[in-house]
Amino acid sequence: MAKDKKLVEGITSMDVDFAQWYTDVVKKAELCDYTSVKGCMVIKPAGYAIWENIQKELDRRFKETGVQNVYLPMFIPESLLEKEKDHVEGFAPEVAWVTHGGLEPLQERMCVRPTSETLFCDFYAKEIQSHRDLPKVYNQWCSVVRWEKTTRPFLRSREFLWQEGHTAHATAEEAEERTVQMLNVYADFCQDVLAIPVVKGVKTDKEKFAGALRTYTIESLMHDGKALQSGTSHNFGDGFAKAFGIQYTNKENKLVPVHQTSWGMTTRMIGAIIMVHGDDSGLVLPPRIAPIQTMIVPIAMHKEGVLEKAAELKNKLGELYSVALDDSDKSPGWKFSEQEIKGIPTRIEMGPKDIENNQCIVVRRDTREKIVVSLDDIETKLGEILEQMQEDMFQRALAHRESHTYDATEFEEFCKIAEEKPGFIRAMWCGDQACEDKIKEEAGCTSRCMPFEQEELSTKCICCGRPAKKMVYWGKAY
Amino acid sequence: MAKDKKLVEGITSMDVDFAQWYTDVVKKAELCDYTSVKGCMVIKPAGYAIWENIQKELDRRFKETGVQNVYLPMFIPESLLEKEKDHVEGFAPEVAWVTHGGLEPLQERMCVRPTSETLFCDFYAKEIQSHRDLPKVYNQWCSVVRWEKTTRPFLRSREFLWQEGHTAHATAEEAEERTVQMLNVYADFCQDVLAIPVVKGVKTDKEKFAGALRTYTIESLMHDGKALQSGTSHNFGDGFAKAFGIQYTNKENKLVPVHQTSWGMTTRMIGAIIMVHGDDSGLVLPPRIAPIQTMIVPIAMHKEGVLEKAAELKNKLGELYSVALDDSDKSPGWKFSEQEIKGIPTRIEMGPKDIENNQCIVVRRDTREKIVVSLDDIETKLGEILEQMQEDMFQRALAHRESHTYDATEFEEFCKIAEEKPGFIRAMWCGDQACEDKIKEEAGCTSRCMPFEQEELSTKCICCGRPAKKMVYWGKAY
Repeated sequence: MAKDKKLVEGITSMDVDFAQWYTDVVKKAELCDYTSVKGCMVIKPAGYAIWENIQKELDRRFKETGVQNVYLPMFIPESLLEKEKDHVEGFAPEVAWVTHGGLEPLQERMCVRPTSETLFCDFYAKEIQSHRDLPKVYNQWCSVVRWEKTTRPFLRSREFLWQEGHTAHATAEEAEERTVQMLNVYADFCQDVLAIPVVKGVKTDKEKFAGALRTYTIESLMHDGKALQSGTSHNFGDGFAKAFGIQYTNKENKLVPVHQTSWGMTTRMIGAIIMVHGDDSGLVLPPRIAPIQTMIVPIAMHKEGVLEKAAELKNKLGELYSVALDDSDKSPGWKFSEQEIKGIPTRIEMGPKDIENNQCIVVRRDTREKIVVSLDDIETKLGEILEQMQEDMFQRALAHRESHTYDATEFEEFCKIAEEKPGFIRAMWCGDQACEDKIKEEAGCTSRCMPFEQEELSTKCICCGRPAKKMVYWGKAY
Repeated sequence: MAKDKKLVEGITSMDVDFAQWYTDVVKKAELCDYTSVKGCMVIKPAGYAIWENIQKELDRRFKETGVQNVYLPMFIPESLLEKEKDHVEGFAPEVAWVTHGGLEPLQERMCVRPTSETLFCDFYAKEIQSHRDLPKVYNQWCSVVRWEKTTRPFLRSREFLWQEGHTAHATAEEAEERTVQMLNVYADFCQDVLAIPVVKGVKTDKEKFAGALRTYTIESLMHDGKALQSGTSHNFGDGFAKAFGIQYTNKENKLVPVHQTSWGMTTRMIGAIIMVHGDDSGLVLPPRIAPIQTMIVPIAMHKEGVLEKAAELKNKLGELYSVALDDSDKSPGWKFSEQEIKGIPTRIEMGPKDIENNQCIVVRRDTREKIVVSLDDIETKLGEILEQMQEDMFQRALAHRESHTYDATEFEEFCKIAEEKPGFIRAMWCGDQACEDKIKEEAGCTSRCMPFEQEELSTKCICCGRPAKKMVYWGKAY
C-alpha cells in the first residue's frame, strides 16, 4: 500500500502506535464518541451512515434467501435465560439486570438481552406445532448489551448494534445447510462490499458459542496483524429445542424436536473497515459501502462560473453515485484533508482552467492517483475508477493477509513467529483442548478457526506431537 | 364504508365488541403476539414488514429536510435523568431500572431510556461550542421502555419501537420552524401514505410533553370514535439547554444557550391503520404502505397452463408492484379469506376461462369490487386501481371523522354528546386547567388539541362561561 508519510494533525502514525491511530481515526473521522454512560458510545452521523449501508446490503441478501424480519422484546426473564445450561453459563456473568419497573421491585428480575436465543425459543415453542409451520427463518435488527470490563469503540462496547438471525428447521441437514448458507452470505458481503478477505472455518469446541453444537466463523486480519472475528453462524442441533420443548408433528405424525441455527454480524465491522483499509491520513472507505462516494471540491470558487459548473456536475453525477459538493468557505487544501480523514473514496477537483479544458481531476483516496477526466466521460469514468478502487482495495488487503500468514510445524518455531511476526499462524492440532490452552498460555494465540480449506502441513500436533486432526488458524485477536 | 356482514371465523364483529375485534384482527392477521415477558410483544413478520415500510417512507422524508441518523446508548444514568425537573417528574415513575452489571451492583443505577432528551442534551453539550456547530438535526430509530400497567398490542406496550428526532438551533425562531416542519412531515405522511386524516394542533399545558415549552400533535379518529395521538413534535425553548449547559458562542462572540426540539412517531401507527381501515373480515392496508400490494390466486390451478400463466403475470407485475402468488394446495376460497384477513389491498383471480379470454379479475379489498382487466392492460390498470383505492380509503376515513365530529356550545350538550356519540367534540375553552379537569371528570373527555384552524363557535368557555380563548378538540383517547 502506498504509505502516506505526511503527518495529519491529530492522527498518530499507525506504525508508531496502532491502537492510538485507531482511536484517533475514529475521533477525527467523527464516527463515534464516548458518552456519560460508561462503556457505551454514541454512533455519530458519519459512522451511522456506514451502518445503514451495511444494513441495507445485508438485509437485501438475507431476504433473497427467504429471511423475514421480526422484533422480540429486549428483556429476558431470569428463568428463561436459565433454561439452557451451557447458554446461561456463557452469558449470565456479563448481562445487565433490570430489578425495578417504575417504583416497584420486579417479582422476577430480567436481563437486557445479550443475544436472543432464549426469547426466540420461547416464541417458537408457541408458534411451531406442525411440519407445515417449518422452516422459520427470522431475523431482527436491534441492540444488545454485554457488560464488558474494557471497551473499545466499535470493537467492544457494552451496548452494540447487530442483526441476529434465528431459524428452526425440520431436519438436522436443513439446519446445517442454513448455517453454512448464512456464513457464506457474510463472507461474500465482507469480500464483495467491504473489500475484506476472510478465512471461513469452524470454531474449536473451546471457542464455540455457548449452547451451540458447532460455530462457523469468518476471520479477517487487521493491518496490525491481529485477527478479528467478523461474523458467526451457529448450528444448535436440537439442544435448545429439547430444553424449551420446541417440537412439531412430522409427516409420520410423530412429535419430534426442531433443529435450530443463529447467526449475527455487528457494528464491529465498522472497526474492521477502519483497521483493514485506513492509513495515516485517516479512514479509507471501500466505494461500495461509502455513504458519500465522491466529494466535489471547486478550486478558485470565487471565479465566475466555477460554482455553477460544480453544482451542475454534482447534479449530473448524483443520479448515478452518492455525491457531495463542498462549497463552504474553507480553503481547498483544508477540504482535501477533510475528505481524506473521512475516507471518501474519491474527490473531484475542478477549477477555471479545468473548466476551460472541459475536464476535471479525479483523485483516488487509496492511492492518491490523480486522473484527468473529460467532463463528457465523467459519468462512466467515475464508475470505472470506483470499481477499480474497490477491487484494488480487496487485492491489497488479500496480499497483506497472505504476507502475514505463516506456517509452523514445530512448537518453538510457532512461539517465535507469535512473538515476532504479527499475523495468522497455520499449524496442525490434535483436537485436544489441553494443547489449545497451552498454545494460548505460552504463545498468546487463540485458535481462530479450523478452515474449510484444509492442508496437511504435518502429520503431528504442533503442541503435543500426537497425530494431528486439523489444520488451525491461530492468532492474537481483538 | 361497505360493511361486510360475513362472519370470519375468529374475528368478532366490530359492532359487537370493538376492543375484541381489534385483538382478533391483530392475532388473525399475524401482526404481533404476547410473549413470556409481561407487557412486551413480539412483532411478527407481517407486522414488522409494515413497520419497515413506515420507516422507509418517514426516513426518506426526514432526510429530505436534512435529518441525519445517529445512535445513542439505551441507558440513562439516574443523575442525568434528574437534570431537568419537569422531565424527571414526568418519566421517573414509569421507567425500568438497571441496578446490576454482570455480577456486581452498579455504583449508580440507570434506567432504560423512555425517551432520549437527556442523552441528546448530554451529547450536544459536548458537541456544540460555536454557531458553526449549529444546527444539529439528528434522529434515531430505536426501542424505548415505559413501564405501563395495562397494555394493548401496538397501542400501549412496555417496550415499543419508534424514531426520536432531537435538534438544536441557534435561535428560538429556527427551533419553532423545525417543530412545525416535522409536525407537517408527520401529517403529510399519515394522510398521503397511511390514508389517515389528522387534525393538527397544539396540546394544552396539561397535556404537553414533560419539559416542553409547547407540544404540537396530530390527532386521528379511530373507527370506534376514539382519538389516537399519532405523532408529536415538541419545542423545548432553551429549558433543557440551560439545565444541561448547552451553549454556543454566537457571531457577536457571546455565550448563549441553544433552542431545542424533539419529535417522534411509533409502532402505534400500525394500531391506527388497523382501527381506521379494518373491517369485519380483517385488516385493510392502504396500498402505499402494504408490504404486498396484490396477491395472485390461480383458479383451477391443476389445469394446464394456469400456474405458468400466473407465474408469468407475477413476474410482469413484480417489476412495478409488490406481488405475491399463492400457489399452495389450499382452496381458492381459503386463499381469498386469508388475503382478506391480512388486508392485502388487491387480489387477482385468474382461471382457465380468464386465460382463454386474455383477462384476469382484480378484486379490491376495501369495496370488494371485481374489475375485469385485459392482460394487455393489467400493468397500468393495477396501478390505477391501487391509487384509486388509496384515495377512496382516505376519503372514507375523512367522511367518517367529519360525521363523528360534533360542536357543542353548552356544557350539558357537551356531556350528552360525550355520553351518546363517540367522536371528536369541538368546543370553546377559557384556557384554565380547572375547566379542563372538570371536563375530564364529568364528561370523560381529554383535550386532544387546540387546532391550527380555529373557529369561534361561541365567545364563552364551554365549562365556566368566562371569555373563551381557544377552540379545542376533545375526545376519549387510546
